[in-house]
This record gives sequence, structure tokens and C-alpha cells, in this order.
Amino acid sequence: MTERKLTLLPNLLTPNQPLDEAFVPALYQLVPKLKGIIAESQKEGRRFLKHFKVHLPIAVLNEHTKADELNFLLDPIYSGEHWGLISDAGMPSIADPGENLITLARKRNIEIGLISGPSSILSALLLSGMSAESFTFHGYLPINNLKTHLKGFAKNHTHLFIETPYRNVKTLQTLKELFPKGHICLAIEIGGDERVIIDQLAKITDFDALHKKPTVFVFRR
Amino acid sequence: MTERKLTLLPNLLTPNQPLDEAFVPALYQLVPKLKGIIAESQKEGRRFLKHFKVHLPIAVLNEHTKADELNFLLDPIYSGEHWGLISDAGMPSIADPGENLITLARKRNIEIGLISGPSSILSALLLSGMSAESFTFHGYLPINNLKTHLKGFAKNHTHLFIETPYRNVKTLQTLKELFPKGHICLAIEIGGDERVIIDQLAKITDFDALHKKPTVFVFRR
Repeated sequence: MTERKLTLLPNLLTPNQPLDEAFVPALYQLVPKLKGIIAESQKEGRRFLKHFKVHLPIAVLNEHTKADELNFLLDPIYSGEHWGLISDAGMPSIADPGENLITLARKRNIEIGLISGPSSILSALLLSGMSAESFTFHGYLPINNLKTHLKGFAKNHTHLFIETPYRNVKTLQTLKELFPKGHICLAIEIGGDERVIIDQLAKITDFDALHKKPTVFVFRR
Repeated sequence: MTERKLTLLPNLLTPNQPLDEAFVPALYQLVPKLKGIIAESQKEGRRFLKHFKVHLPIAVLNEHTKADELNFLLDPIYSGEHWGLISDAGMPSIADPGENLITLARKRNIEIGLISGPSSILSALLLSGMSAESFTFHGYLPINNLKTHLKGFAKNHTHLFIETPYRNVKTLQTLKELFPKGHICLAIEIGGDERVIIDQLAKITDFDALHKKPTVFVFRR
């Protein structure tokens, strides 16, 4: 029986997140039945599979993968196998290279499945207590013209973004300078040594808290 | 020992979603230890608790809850209890009344926790294969001036929105009329009798598929 299916699988948000907070029972049922997984690296693929005590072929998809290699990744699935797709943390394809693969898979009539799991972006939004009626996730902010970009953020709307961790402090300083009356939620190391700081930007003084730590910014002007 | 904690809990996306695809083991550990839950109705609260075979006090928070009643809901928690917050489906406070409660809870120094679970919006985005590098969730679209609103959607950006199910067909027709070359993903009954339709709007003809069915629209101009 051919399955021809690619299922998006959750990964831990941080390496030390407890498994029982991240993985639903259905994931333990599914993973041993897969024929392989696509991961951002062999190392992360192996680390993921260890949780399920199985050995499976690992194919690599990351920012170095060329467009013409995507078809190659899908070939075993197209031939009738069921594979999984993971990212290094959380759900695949949020700010990840996975989405082109999914579009291509659909074009080749490969079924796409999903097992839900933790998302640091969604968690940050919910924990912030800020309005989730409408919101924008901006991904990584541009390095150039950061101020112009931030000034374009709509009012009465919730904005989420992430930064390369070593840039966190500078971005927060810029945000505070531009919008001292704005409200910020800094969701630091969600799923790990979690810390959530919420305040008016003018009152934020503890910049060390997010220095070099994975942080989701939730912001309202 | 006082806990003074409110934890956001996942609910099933649809009443017939399998529990093992929605609930992590940590949820089964936590729920029996809670002193009560806040739900959108007594009925949904009871339905949720049945999954965990426990009876707990249920307090109601919905669109009829007045702002001055929120403090009343938090009083038992403030006195040192740990309660849970659920919505009728998925994670609480996405397009729900929960967020004011969370803001108020933080002001009263109540700790906010979260157990992750399924989200139909996040699932729709991932299953769509459209770029998740940056996206906006618009919540429910406005009934008046729908066309003007849709025309304001930014290009090169992924847009998500939901509709009251009986308005799905009309909204899809309007979208097709305005943006025949745009790309749509209709994520219908996610977590239930799931169906995902992805195509150029000009090619969409099966409007019945989403008639009166809970649908997340994922759209790029």
C-alpha cells in the first residue's frame, strides 16, 4: 500500500523542554511507522529520533538546500513512503526553509499531514495578554533601516517578531527610544528557563534579561 | 502553600478530534490538581473536564462578561489557588475574550502558565505551504466595507482570517472577484473531518466545500 505522505512534526522548543509538555501521544504512535525524516541537520534529526528510540534515514533541508534539490528530497515519498518533517525547534516552516517543500509536495500530489505541538510565537502571544484578535508576525526584523521599519508598525494591532539573539538588546533599545509609551512583552526562552517580562517600554531597564537569549517580542504601539 | 496561578489550557479543535492528537501528557497531570477552570460556558467546561474524569468548579467568561466581573473571576486565584482557562476550541484568547483577564491577572501578580496544544490558525498556515516568514492574522473580517478592507491587504505577505461559517461562501466569492490571480488555502474543519483546498482563486469553483463549515482562510495576493 502506498502512502505518499509528508507529515509536519513538532520538535521541542528548547533541548531541555520536558517531553510530556511538547509531544502528544499520537506522535509516539506515528514516528516509528515513518520511513524517514527531513531535518535541518543530521545532528538534530538524530536528537529528535532518540526521543522515540528509533533509527530512521535522515534527509537534510536547510538554508543551503537548493531549489532543484527539493524534488530529490520528495522522491522517496512520491514513490509511496510516509516521511516526517521537523525543524530545530517548535513547528517546521515558521521562519524556516520548509514551506517551499510543502508547496512542491502538494504539486506532486503528496498528502500533507500535521501533528500539533508547541510554538514559541503562539505561546508568547498568549502569555502576553495582548490582543490576539488581530496580529502580525514580522519574522526577523531587517538589519538596515530598522527604525523606519518599526515606525511603519500599525497602531491598535499586536506585532510579533524575533531577532538573532545577540541583537536583542539593541533592538529593544531602539524600540524603547521610538515608542516609550508602547507596551512590550519579552518572552524569553519559552519552553526552557522561561521568563516573561511585560511592561511599558519606558519602564524597561533590565536589558540583560534577554541578552543572547532566544526571545519573542510582542509589541503594541 | 499558595500558588496564585492561571494556566492557559488547550481544548480540542472540534468535539471529535482524537484526544491523543490534542492533549500532551502534562495536561493530564495538571488538570486534576486545579481548583477550578474558567470556560466560555458551563456546558463546554463540563465537556472538557470529562476528558480528565474530574469534577471542578467552572466559572464562565464569554462575550457577555462585563469588565468589572473579571476581578471577581480572579479572586479565588488571588487567594492562592491554581485555575485553568479554556476556550471552546483550540487555545484560549485567540479571537476570544480571554486576553483582558490575562492582563488583569498579571496586574494582580498572578502567575500565568501555558500548556501548548492545537491551533487551527497555526495548522492552517503550516498546511498551506505559503510563506510563514511574515504573516498577519486579521481575526473576523468586518461585515461592512469588506471589499475596501480586502483591497488594503499587503502584497508579498500571508494573510489569515476567519469568518462566521455562514458567510464563508460570500467572502470567498468576493475574494475571487477582487484577486483572481491570488492564492488561497481553505483549511476546512481542521482537527475534524479535515479538508485543505489550495489553488489560485480563479480556479476555485467548489464553494460548497466550505459552506457553513469552520474554515481558516490563508491568502496571498
